[in-house]
Amino acid sequence: MYIYNAIQRNAKILSNNIATVCSGRESTWAETQARVEKLASGLIAHNVNAGDHVAILALNSARYMEYFYAVPWMGGVLVPLNIRWSFRENVYALEDSECSVLFVDDAFLEMGQELLREAGKIHLAVYMGEKETPKGMVSFEQLIKEGTACPPAEQGYDSLVGIFYKGGTTGFPKGVMLSHRNLWTSAISVMADVRLTDEDGRYLHAAPMFHLADAAFSQSATIGGMTHVFVPFFEPSSVIRATEEHKVTHTLLVPTMISMLLTDTTLSTADMSSLRTIVYGASPMPIGTLREAIESLPHVGFVQAYGQSELGPLCSILSSKYHVLDGTGTGKIRSAGRPGYCVNVEVRDANGEEVERGFVGEIAVKGPNTMMGYWKKPDETRAVMIGGWILTGDVGYMDEDGFIYLVDRAKDMIITGGENVFSVEVENVISMHPAVLQSVVIAIPSEQWGESVHAIVRLKDGEEATEEEIIEHCRAHIAAYKAPRSVEFRQEPFPVTGAGKLRKVELREAYWKDRERAIN
Amino acid sequence: MYIYNAIQRNAKILSNNIATVCSGRESTWAETQARVEKLASGLIAHNVNAGDHVAILALNSARYMEYFYAVPWMGGVLVPLNIRWSFRENVYALEDSECSVLFVDDAFLEMGQELLREAGKIHLAVYMGEKETPKGMVSFEQLIKEGTACPPAEQGYDSLVGIFYKGGTTGFPKGVMLSHRNLWTSAISVMADVRLTDEDGRYLHAAPMFHLADAAFSQSATIGGMTHVFVPFFEPSSVIRATEEHKVTHTLLVPTMISMLLTDTTLSTADMSSLRTIVYGASPMPIGTLREAIESLPHVGFVQAYGQSELGPLCSILSSKYHVLDGTGTGKIRSAGRPGYCVNVEVRDANGEEVERGFVGEIAVKGPNTMMGYWKKPDETRAVMIGGWILTGDVGYMDEDGFIYLVDRAKDMIITGGENVFSVEVENVISMHPAVLQSVVIAIPSEQWGESVHAIVRLKDGEEATEEEIIEHCRAHIAAYKAPRSVEFRQEPFPVTGAGKLRKVELREAYWKDRERAIN
Repeated sequence: MYIYNAIQRNAKILSNNIATVCSGRESTWAETQARVEKLASGLIAHNVNAGDHVAILALNSARYMEYFYAVPWMGGVLVPLNIRWSFRENVYALEDSECSVLFVDDAFLEMGQELLREAGKIHLAVYMGEKETPKGMVSFEQLIKEGTACPPAEQGYDSLVGIFYKGGTTGFPKGVMLSHRNLWTSAISVMADVRLTDEDGRYLHAAPMFHLADAAFSQSATIGGMTHVFVPFFEPSSVIRATEEHKVTHTLLVPTMISMLLTDTTLSTADMSSLRTIVYGASPMPIGTLREAIESLPHVGFVQAYGQSELGPLCSILSSKYHVLDGTGTGKIRSAGRPGYCVNVEVRDANGEEVERGFVGEIAVKGPNTMMGYWKKPDETRAVMIGGWILTGDVGYMDEDGFIYLVDRAKDMIITGGENVFSVEVENVISMHPAVLQSVVIAIPSEQWGESVHAIVRLKDGEEATEEEIIEHCRAHIAAYKAPRSVEFRQEPFPVTGAGKLRKVELREAYWKDRERAIN
Repeated sequence: MYIYNAIQRNAKILSNNIATVCSGRESTWAETQARVEKLASGLIAHNVNAGDHVAILALNSARYMEYFYAVPWMGGVLVPLNIRWSFRENVYALEDSECSVLFVDDAFLEMGQELLREAGKIHLAVYMGEKETPKGMVSFEQLIKEGTACPPAEQGYDSLVGIFYKGGTTGFPKGVMLSHRNLWTSAISVMADVRLTDEDGRYLHAAPMFHLADAAFSQSATIGGMTHVFVPFFEPSSVIRATEEHKVTHTLLVPTMISMLLTDTTLSTADMSSLRTIVYGASPMPIGTLREAIESLPHVGFVQAYGQSELGPLCSILSSKYHVLDGTGTGKIRSAGRPGYCVNVEVRDANGEEVERGFVGEIAVKGPNTMMGYWKKPDETRAVMIGGWILTGDVGYMDEDGFIYLVDRAKDMIITGGENVFSVEVENVISMHPAVLQSVVIAIPSEQWGESVHAIVRLKDGEEATEEEIIEHCRAHIAAYKAPRSVEFRQEPFPVTGAGKLRKVELREAYWKDRERAIN
C-alpha cells in the first residue's frame, strides 16, 4: 500500500469522523483528504515535481501530518529534520539530502530563514505558522486554498517515501531511505500483533513527529482510523491537559518522557482514565521507571516497541500482558518482546553465524520492513545490510520462547579486565535504588583494567546517597566486576538526542578526549 | 514476507506449541518446520527444481499444509486441484499449468494413477496416504525421511507462490497467479482488522484446503501461531466431533456448510462452547440462514469475509459487532462489510468511472493483495485488470459508512421488462419464509418481458408451501416486478462448485438451451 491509501480509506468509510484535533481546530477524514490533495497540487503548482525532496522543520501539529501525506501524494520525498539539531546540522542535512523545498513553523521561523540563505538549493519555503507570511515564503494555507483535487502519484509500493535521518549520536547523520512498503509493513504488523488501534481511539502525538517512532505509530493510527491529537512538543503538563481534554486513549512516549511524566506533581490528581495504551520505545526503559509507571497508571496497558529507523522501524513487541511486575510470569518484562509478524530475527556471532539459543550476539533482522539503504552512503549501507539482513548494532540474546533481551548497544559495552559488562544491566540495577532518578553507566579509561565501569547518577529531589552506597547496592545485585568502580553525581539532565535518546557518547567523550577506544 | 516465514517465526518463538492435530497425530511448530524443510529437500533430491509446478489432489490433512509450505520453501509453485473436478477437468488443469509433480492421498489415489497415465508430463508422484506406497510413486514420509534441513528459496516477495484455479462455473477454469506478497498482505490485513487469531486459538480446516478461502485463513492462523486441526472434508458430524474433541476456537465455513450444520440433529446437544469465531464467505449468505446461525450459536462471533481468488482473496470484512439482528444497528448485517486495510475499493459504472455513493455499479479493487494475472491467459487478464485495478464482476453499492452491499454477480442479474432484478435480493426474501430451506432465483426466457424471475425452492423436511404462497410472501416484502413469476420445488441439493458455490449457470442452462442470453 501507499501510506496515503490509509487516508483515502478513512475519507471513504469514516468520512465524518474526526481525523485531527490541533490548536482548537478539528478536521474530519474527508476534510483531511481534501487538504492533503490540495496541498499536493499546490506544491505541484509551485514547480515541485515528483521525486523532489521536501524537508520540514517544525513542532507537532495537524499540518505536520498533512505534510506527511501530501508530499508522498504528489510523489515527493519526505525529509523530516531533527528539531534538536543545530543550524550547522540542518544545513548539512538539507544539502546532503538535496532538498529543494522546506516547510517551517513559527518555532523554527528564524532558523528557517537563515537556512534559506545558507542552503542554496531551496527554491520554495512553505510557512506553516499562524502569523503573517514572511517575505520569500508561501503559506501552507495559501497552497491549500490555491490547490485542487488531484490523483496520487502511485510510483510503486517500493518507491522511496522518505529520508529519515538517524540521530547522529556519532559523526554525521545518516539518511535512512524507506519505501511506502517499509512503513506500511511495520505499521500493519504492529496492529495485527497487539491491537493498538481502533476506530474510537484517540492518539496523542507527544513525541516529536520528525522521529520514526511517532511516524510509525501515527501510520498505525491512521490505518486504524483513530483521531490524531497534537501537542507541539512533550511537556508533562501538556500531555496531562490534552489527555483530560481530548480523552486521549493511546500515546507513544520515550522512557525519559515517562520519567518526567511520573514526577509531575499534577499527575496524581489528573483524570487520566481515558488512557488505555502507552507505547514506549526508542531507548531502553530502566526497570525501576517501568515499575513506577505501571504502579502510577494501573489502568494503562504498556507496550514496548523495539526497533530502529533502518527497520521501518519495527523489530519486536512486548505486549502489555507481559508487563508483569510480581509473581509468576515476571521474567518477560525485562525483554524487548517477540519479533513482529513481519520480522525475521537472528542473533549472530562475530562471524555472522546464528548463535545457539540463549547466547549473546548481535541482533540481525530481515523483512519487507527493512530499509532501502542509507542515502548516498553505499559503504555505510554495505556495512549494515548483508544478504538482505540488517545488522542492528544491538547486542542481546533470545530466550526459549523467542523473547529478545537487549544487553547493550555494541558501542556502549564496557570491556573491563577482559570481561564484558553491559551498561544497561548496571543502569537497571542502579535504577532500583530508591534515591535514584536516573543513571548512565559508561566506560572510562583505566590503566589497570583497560576500561573501568563508571556511573553518573541523578538523585531524586530531596534524596541523598553516597558513592559507596550506590556501589554497595550494585554489588548486592550483580557480580562485583560489573559494579561501578566510581560514581559521580550530577544535577542537570543528561544530554539527549532529538528523539530523546541518551547521548552516552557525549558523556564518554569527556573521559576519552586524548585517547582512542578499541570500540567506537 | 514469504508465506513460510510464518512457519520459521513459530518454530523459533512457539517451538513446542502444537502446530497440527490430524488423525491422532500432533506436531509442534519445531517439528513442522523440520518436516517442511525435509520435504522440500526431498523434492529437490527427486529432481524437482525451483520454478517447477507441483499439483496436489487431496482431502484436508496436516500433510496438505506441509505441502503448502514445503513447495514454496524449495521455490516450487503450488497448484491445488479442485477435489470436485472430473477426471477431464484435472487433466486440463495439470496440462494447462504445466505441472511436473503430483501429490495424491488415498481418497484420490485411483484418479491420481489415471492422471499419471494421461497427463504425460508428471515425472514425480508423491503418495500422501496411509497404505503401502503404490508402484511408480514415492511416499510423502519417505521424502521427509530422506530429506535434510535446507534454507528456503527466497526468490523475492513478489515471486509466484501458487496457481489457484477458479471454480470454472463457466468455461475452462482460469489459473489465478498469486505471489507471496499477495497471500501475506491479505492474511495480515484480516488479522489487523478483526483480531481473528491468537496463540491459544485452534483453527479447524473444514472447508476444502485447495480453495483460497481456507488457504488464506490458514495463513492468518499460521502467522498468529494458532494450532491447525483438520477434518478430511466437511460433514456436520465431523465438524461437531472435532470441535468437541479438540476445543476448536475458529473455523471457516461457506454458507451451504453452515446451513447443513444448523440442520444437523446433534448440534443442539453438542458442546460447541470452545468455538469463538466462524468466518463465512465465498458466496452470499441468505439473511434467514444467518439469523438461524446466530440464534443457534449465540456465543460465536460471525465474521463475513468477502473476496475472490483474484484478490488474494480479501476484499472486505464484516466483523462480528455488525452482526446485529434486531433493534438499532441492524442495517449493516446485510452488507459484505468494509474494505480490508490493504484494499482500495471503487464502485464503477459501465464507463469505468466511480459512481456516486449509494449508487449501484461494479466493485473494483486495487492493492498489494491483487493477483499477478491469470496463468497463460493474457486476454482474460487484460479484461479484468485495468490500470492496476481488478474488476470483480460483482455488482453492488457502498453506503455512507463505507459498507459494501453486493446486489448480485453481474451474470446473475435478471433484466425483466427493462428493470434490473438482483437474484440475491429475491433469494434473501424467500429465505425468510419459515418453510424454506434454500432457494435459487434465476432469469428464464420470457416472450413478454425478455427475462422473467424464476425461483427454485427447497423446502425443509416436513414443511409445505405452494407456488402462490412463495410469490405472495415476496410481494409482501419487495416490489411486485422483483417477485418470482414462477416457482418450482425441488428436493435434491443444488449443484455446487468444489468450493461450495452454487452453480446458477447450470440451473439456468436448462431454460436457455436453444437461445442466447444478452449477458453471459
